[in-house]
Amino acid sequence: METADRAVVLNTAQALKMKQKINVGLIGLGTVGTGTFRILTGNAESIRHRVGVPVEVVKVAVRDPKRDRGLSLPAGVLTTDPMDVVTDPSVDIVVELIGGYEPARSLLLEAIARGKHVVTANKALLAVHGIEIHAAARRAGVDVGFEGSVGGGIPVVKALKEALAANRILSIYGIINGTSNYILSKMTDEDRSFADVLAEAQQAGYAEADPTFDVGGIDTAHKLAILVNLAFGAGVDLKDIYTEGITAISPEDIDFGRDFGYKLKLLAIAKARGGKVEARVHPTMVPDEYPIAKVGGVYNAIQVVGDACGDIMLYGRGAGSLPTGSAVVADIMDISRSILMEPSRRLPAVTERAHLEVQPMDTITSIYYLRFTALDQPGVLSQISGILGRHNISIAQVIQRGRKEGGAVPLVVMTHTALERDIQKALVEVKSLASVREQPVLIRVEGGPE
Amino acid sequence: METADRAVVLNTAQALKMKQKINVGLIGLGTVGTGTFRILTGNAESIRHRVGVPVEVVKVAVRDPKRDRGLSLPAGVLTTDPMDVVTDPSVDIVVELIGGYEPARSLLLEAIARGKHVVTANKALLAVHGIEIHAAARRAGVDVGFEGSVGGGIPVVKALKEALAANRILSIYGIINGTSNYILSKMTDEDRSFADVLAEAQQAGYAEADPTFDVGGIDTAHKLAILVNLAFGAGVDLKDIYTEGITAISPEDIDFGRDFGYKLKLLAIAKARGGKVEARVHPTMVPDEYPIAKVGGVYNAIQVVGDACGDIMLYGRGAGSLPTGSAVVADIMDISRSILMEPSRRLPAVTERAHLEVQPMDTITSIYYLRFTALDQPGVLSQISGILGRHNISIAQVIQRGRKEGGAVPLVVMTHTALERDIQKALVEVKSLASVREQPVLIRVEGGPE
Repeated sequence: METADRAVVLNTAQALKMKQKINVGLIGLGTVGTGTFRILTGNAESIRHRVGVPVEVVKVAVRDPKRDRGLSLPAGVLTTDPMDVVTDPSVDIVVELIGGYEPARSLLLEAIARGKHVVTANKALLAVHGIEIHAAARRAGVDVGFEGSVGGGIPVVKALKEALAANRILSIYGIINGTSNYILSKMTDEDRSFADVLAEAQQAGYAEADPTFDVGGIDTAHKLAILVNLAFGAGVDLKDIYTEGITAISPEDIDFGRDFGYKLKLLAIAKARGGKVEARVHPTMVPDEYPIAKVGGVYNAIQVVGDACGDIMLYGRGAGSLPTGSAVVADIMDISRSILMEPSRRLPAVTERAHLEVQPMDTITSIYYLRFTALDQPGVLSQISGILGRHNISIAQVIQRGRKEGGAVPLVVMTHTALERDIQKALVEVKSLASVREQPVLIRVEGGPE
Repeated sequence: METADRAVVLNTAQALKMKQKINVGLIGLGTVGTGTFRILTGNAESIRHRVGVPVEVVKVAVRDPKRDRGLSLPAGVLTTDPMDVVTDPSVDIVVELIGGYEPARSLLLEAIARGKHVVTANKALLAVHGIEIHAAARRAGVDVGFEGSVGGGIPVVKALKEALAANRILSIYGIINGTSNYILSKMTDEDRSFADVLAEAQQAGYAEADPTFDVGGIDTAHKLAILVNLAFGAGVDLKDIYTEGITAISPEDIDFGRDFGYKLKLLAIAKARGGKVEARVHPTMVPDEYPIAKVGGVYNAIQVVGDACGDIMLYGRGAGSLPTGSAVVADIMDISRSILMEPSRRLPAVTERAHLEVQPMDTITSIYYLRFTALDQPGVLSQISGILGRHNISIAQVIQRGRKEGGAVPLVVMTHTALERDIQKALVEVKSLASVREQPVLIRVEGGPE
């Protein structure tokens, strides 16, 4: 290293020694806010040791200051106006944990405009307004921490931003919605219906009263947008991400999948495809022996395949007060260290410059599980396989289960790799057959025979 | 942030803009060195984008410059004297990838003394001389990157240093030696003997001609020493880590373990125990349903339990040219960014100040799998269980398999949680029974009934 650089560097280190404390302002004291506060106070001593100076919560905005959260908040810290946190000149880092688009977006932009670093776990906000927020932060020379936005306490953001930064990322497979994974795991283990398990999950507090965001795949798509941006260095429009939830999954298909050696998971999938990227969320069959197939209950897992590191899987608690708080505090600590050093030159991990083209869904290729309900009469299999063949769809395996002369029985097909567009066209034709009853079921399959 | 700080910071950023390139010197071009070089050249463009300036290999020391490594090395880069790399004034980061204690230690210390940042994947060196190297680096104000020393491409060092920094670490369980895991997986899946699978692994290149470091648990203990230092912020003496390899494992015990619902793994275990820490390496039975039980073949996995994040597992390729190269280059990129910023104030992740007391092995508690070979005669079970009971060892399950009047048969016991010292004393007594033949087999068990 040149001597000139070193001299400047050491002088700076001296000059910066005047900063004796990092001041944090929290907006929101719900599940994640409470966890964040607990960690910052409970582990204050080891955090001080690792950062170099104390990290202290000096301002907290809540809607209802009278509510008992079981926390001992210092006097004068609470406010009901989030702008008090943003405008407080002593606050170095503004932590937004209220969720939703507004006022979260305006508060973060205002904090950034005032030269404050920000931390958020707000995946919906980042998926839709991430480019705007990152661009504003770059202009202002401040950091945006968002480790808590995907995978709770699992350090996937840091992995993609830093630890795997030497890699060209080839693909990402994520189980990143705990509610959906809990429901699918229960349906699989106990052979129960979606509605039945959902009702139980709602009672147990694992699913919201309105579960649409979770079971509809929307939350997963939000998180996938964030991961794609990190992995491929460019933004992606949420509307370009094909999104299909788990509401239509029947135990029958889970069961047939088992016969083929697959587990059913709601996967977020991203794959590099030349200059484009595949980005999609849908129920997916995964070979039993894949590590990601074994992720049960409310756990999350993200598999990343890089050209150098090969396949890496990160696994852990994808939500909750302390796990997500752990990620938020890790961001606060990283930013604290960068405040004590030099904040303007940070890794350009999230790029606002480029826009990433998502591969249209009808041009992806996959293996497909297809379940038809057909009359149990001669020639049906031949008709269906004829249609598939004419659409360039090659069959790997067929299961016909049960016999019911003149009645409708399931006919299940596992294909070789085929083009989505061909599959969709073939299904329209198959559906029009007189012998085929009900809407055919289509589930995409990852892994297995090509 | 105070205005004074910002002014200094921005001036520095301006001043540092003079640095247009980061120069890397490699010592060693073996498996990991070749992978590192390939990634730095193959992904040069994206690395430049992420770091901000080009990262270039300007000097490479090898033993035999004539050997064909399939790399296109620029003219004038190769040398046979590693000191050429260390003393080259243009080199910013010295990367040591020759392994072993000397000359690796002297080269790193010399590079550090000359104000150069260093990166190494040398776990044996760090386990034994890590404290000395980190102390020298701290004095010199330079960084030591060592992500590649544990778990190949799996970012466990960064996870413990940064991503989980908000946590008090409660425990670590690691499958961190691919050779041992490959052998145990094969023995489990194919019901074959250790010697048989080892011979095959040696032929396939998965095990060294002298496999002692791997199958004896020594390599695992080296890596555990590094993880303990990171997780608990203090050094540990390698000799304090109880180390038992897999050479004595018989397929019979793997089989009985299966009956109880366990998989056999060579685990590195560290647990916080008040001010002390348990740190040990031994074959361990793990419940089938634990994620770490499902890690097969040459894969590595590290489970970390933190007080906030809960249980996290990192899984991937624990060795190999490109995976370990991926970790080495991630270090190079991190350090490059810190050179472009300000290197003197880094996270005090590895602490040289404190020494960590390791809990003596005879004071740990565990569940135990015990296999006795005893004459098939009345009263033997009663004798053995009597001895166990007198030593405060409570029995959870017993399996007696096969009957052979007057002959020796296996008698397998799964205990509840017991004290190691009690177990050892009881085994001496059991062994002295006239009805007991052969040395009793002891395997520790993690998880399961307390």
